[in-house]
Amino acid sequence: MGKVATGTNVFINPMPIVLVGVREKSKANFITVGWVTRVNTNPPMVAVSISKSHYTAELIREARTFSINVPGADMADKVDYCGLVSGKDVDKSALFDVFFGTLKTAPMISECPLCLECKLVDTLPMKTNYLFIGEIAGAFTEEKYLTDGLPDPEKINPLVLTMPDTSYRTLGKPAGKAWSDGKKLMKK
Amino acid sequence: MGKVATGTNVFINPMPIVLVGVREKSKANFITVGWVTRVNTNPPMVAVSISKSHYTAELIREARTFSINVPGADMADKVDYCGLVSGKDVDKSALFDVFFGTLKTAPMISECPLCLECKLVDTLPMKTNYLFIGEIAGAFTEEKYLTDGLPDPEKINPLVLTMPDTSYRTLGKPAGKAWSDGKKLMKK
Repeated sequence: MGKVATGTNVFINPMPIVLVGVREKSKANFITVGWVTRVNTNPPMVAVSISKSHYTAELIREARTFSINVPGADMADKVDYCGLVSGKDVDKSALFDVFFGTLKTAPMISECPLCLECKLVDTLPMKTNYLFIGEIAGAFTEEKYLTDGLPDPEKINPLVLTMPDTSYRTLGKPAGKAWSDGKKLMKK
Repeated sequence: MGKVATGTNVFINPMPIVLVGVREKSKANFITVGWVTRVNTNPPMVAVSISKSHYTAELIREARTFSINVPGADMADKVDYCGLVSGKDVDKSALFDVFFGTLKTAPMISECPLCLECKLVDTLPMKTNYLFIGEIAGAFTEEKYLTDGLPDPEKINPLVLTMPDTSYRTLGKPAGKAWSDGKKLMKK
């Protein structure tokens, strides 16, 4: 079999890269996050893991709303910057044009092709991180990112992160069709 | 600003595609999952969301261990098949060569470049899904997937899924450097 044990602190590559927005008094703060996933189908819910040491973790616990903003690949510099500096030291609110949705309290980023405003429904304290569970209360995009009325991943052109090579990457080319390619293995 | 509201049941693209393995009596069962992420740095933990209607959800609750197997892009047909048929109806144990790690109870897939065995530490029941939180107890790869002693995403060649176009995709090309590109925006 040839398997070898490796360190357990491994990554599940690639990670979708988003900017998490949260209100900081009258301003907005944003942090770059790669540990994010949908977690419930209906109602639509997401989970975001953020280190307890990050200012954003503190802010989400206070604000109880947050946003998930999917940046386009052309925003890589600002995306990376938001992960390099803390809102404790630097005001990141002027980096982007900010707008609000129905929750009124979760700052979203106009420049991002897809923005979700979320209501905090649960917080799981873990050893080094908080896992924030949010219900998607509103989703915003632009006509130019839609195909047949739905946000189109190729038009959005999102960024992913791979580790340990610390590479941002764009979407790769289609390599198969889900809910389809496996049918050839089904017994007749 | 030009933002338009869209349905809230949106996807965070792309999703890393893994095969979740779990013991089913003396056999192994596998299901394709795209809602998966790391959630804690130390100890290394993962979260996997699985619909309550899936047989795997039931099995993980019983077994209290599971595996996360990262398939290579050349495994797309089998990966898709595991998402199309239920272990209730079809025996998926013979699809792959199965091995076990230190937990002895979490079946892993030899053909997958990267395999994690996980101990269930928490189960969050949500409306339609269970969120399973697992601690990574062991990680296995092969020498040929390592660069400088660590699993290399380009050698692993993982699959991602984008929605709503139901496309499996491979990794895109590097488009920037994380913890680096943003430095040019830092104030001197």
